[in-house]
Amino acid sequence: HHAAGEFDRAVSDIGGSNNAFTSYDYTAFHETVAPSALELMMGFEADRMRNLILTDDVIKTERDVILEERRSRIDNNPEAVLDEEVDATLWQNQPYRIPVIGWMQEMEQLNRTDATAFYDKYYRPNNAVLIVAGDIEPDAVRALAEKTYGKVARGPDLPPRIRPVEPEQNTKRTVTLSDARVSVPSFSTQWVVPSYHTGKPGEAEALDLLAEILGGGNRSRLYQALVVQQGIASSAGAYFQGTMLDDTNFTVYGTPRGDARLADVEAAVDVEVARIARDGVTPAELEKVKDRYVRSMIFARDKQDSMANIYGSTLATGGNVQDVQQWPDRIRKVTADEVKA
Amino acid sequence: HHAAGEFDRAVSDIGGSNNAFTSYDYTAFHETVAPSALELMMGFEADRMRNLILTDDVIKTERDVILEERRSRIDNNPEAVLDEEVDATLWQNQPYRIPVIGWMQEMEQLNRTDATAFYDKYYRPNNAVLIVAGDIEPDAVRALAEKTYGKVARGPDLPPRIRPVEPEQNTKRTVTLSDARVSVPSFSTQWVVPSYHTGKPGEAEALDLLAEILGGGNRSRLYQALVVQQGIASSAGAYFQGTMLDDTNFTVYGTPRGDARLADVEAAVDVEVARIARDGVTPAELEKVKDRYVRSMIFARDKQDSMANIYGSTLATGGNVQDVQQWPDRIRKVTADEVKA
Repeated sequence: HHAAGEFDRAVSDIGGSNNAFTSYDYTAFHETVAPSALELMMGFEADRMRNLILTDDVIKTERDVILEERRSRIDNNPEAVLDEEVDATLWQNQPYRIPVIGWMQEMEQLNRTDATAFYDKYYRPNNAVLIVAGDIEPDAVRALAEKTYGKVARGPDLPPRIRPVEPEQNTKRTVTLSDARVSVPSFSTQWVVPSYHTGKPGEAEALDLLAEILGGGNRSRLYQALVVQQGIASSAGAYFQGTMLDDTNFTVYGTPRGDARLADVEAAVDVEVARIARDGVTPAELEKVKDRYVRSMIFARDKQDSMANIYGSTLATGGNVQDVQQWPDRIRKVTADEVKA
Repeated sequence: HHAAGEFDRAVSDIGGSNNAFTSYDYTAFHETVAPSALELMMGFEADRMRNLILTDDVIKTERDVILEERRSRIDNNPEAVLDEEVDATLWQNQPYRIPVIGWMQEMEQLNRTDATAFYDKYYRPNNAVLIVAGDIEPDAVRALAEKTYGKVARGPDLPPRIRPVEPEQNTKRTVTLSDARVSVPSFSTQWVVPSYHTGKPGEAEALDLLAEILGGGNRSRLYQALVVQQGIASSAGAYFQGTMLDDTNFTVYGTPRGDARLADVEAAVDVEVARIARDGVTPAELEKVKDRYVRSMIFARDKQDSMANIYGSTLATGGNVQDVQQWPDRIRKVTADEVKA
């Protein structure tokens, strides 16, 4: 949602587009403008980093916006309700257990005091990362940054980001949602795994490749086995969201097709997971996936907003510029044994 | 565990015994002494409310004590591990999701700064309830209280106890622990329900009576059906812990006997729960249970420490003296329809 209509209009007036999103670990404000409008744009952003006017009226309107957003995107969507309660179950202690948008009963209580306190604490140049991607030279960006954000007073030092960590997980937990609006059932299984930030060297890279081999697109093992060969699933796959500050989750999922039952699909997914745990992956398969994976990263770099997002998400979750630059080499080094492990 | 060995010895020297426990919503320090030693005992307690000496050595020793307590009482006990992860699953947002003793990885980090901050914030006469039960007059207790705790400086006002509340629960969640040390399996089913503090008038009273009818002891429906008549369970029952600051849980449980499977016991418990939901309880059964329940409260009053505990737990979770005194009348007023509801 938008921080203020006035800001949107100003960006639009200079021919740009803007948006914002909040993820588990950070909030991103992003704009696309012509290079000639960059200085003006950076001036706008630097200005709203400290000079935002938060009246009770603004808060009331924006609170209504997020409440409506929650109703339409989550409460009216059984899959989103299930995801939310799966998160609250998977994470026994880590903050990822809390929905990014918030719980309804708490959102209803949010007020100007809360918003101002959050803004004053976190919206400071010493707690922000500026990413500029496009047809402009680093020295020029630095000069503009000093002229705009550089004028904004540094805030108090923030304490280290020490957050609740997950205890040992000793149980299997199953979350079931029954809803008349769901015509075709689906399932997912999630494991708590290290992220790029919490893992040992190579662990998150191996998980990225495992997700790709197991369930990344139409050439993956899950898709080939369940959708193509057995014909029991309309979809099946796996994913790993590695760019997280804390431990993260590795997920497999599937949806039955035709007469197949949900339990059949779940069992067939389990077979593929067990097969990798037992036999590992082949060197040929691993090389192909590495090529595909590194290539997709290179393609992403061709798009300015993907490029900015890769650097921004890495820097906001404890990584640095080298981590992004050396990532293809680190992917290349992953062995079949590491994927199996 | 003990706050300090020195304190224990001082209490022992005056012929008393002392102990402490922490529940979900409060910590209680309790002693039993002869009336003649009451003034000295209250002096000791008032003294340690503000003058506790917390050195790094004390903290290290006490931290080792609680870590060992956690290892022996929870980590070495599959049933306790399961209970802990059930709590972390049942409560998606409320603080009861956090083990009272703490998660191991966080306990290991506790230090003198944490302990001193907690002590300074909460261990103040304006955040404590003093209960004295026994052969002594109220005026005499008041005089002693003013002479002892009355000398301790009031702390800063504490903010209201606003705590995260539970969102709507939309899913069924199942937590399974498999452990080679468990020879006989068992299960419990828990529902989120109002407590005496969060419920509408009569709701918690009805839940107390429901727990008693369904699973309070050998005359309860669950015990009679599963243990006595069907002979499939070695234990079966229900309980409701109503004296809580936030919403609480209503629990049914069972353990199979002989050839019966866990699923048989679970199904038989479900039948009894469904029967009450469908047909309610009989007036005769309700009257008997009210008698039994109120009588047990009157028996409890005969014991000084039970009496102190009833008042203490009520006052520490948002209730008052009238709530305790009028409780038998409120129990008497509960109707069969309220129990069914």
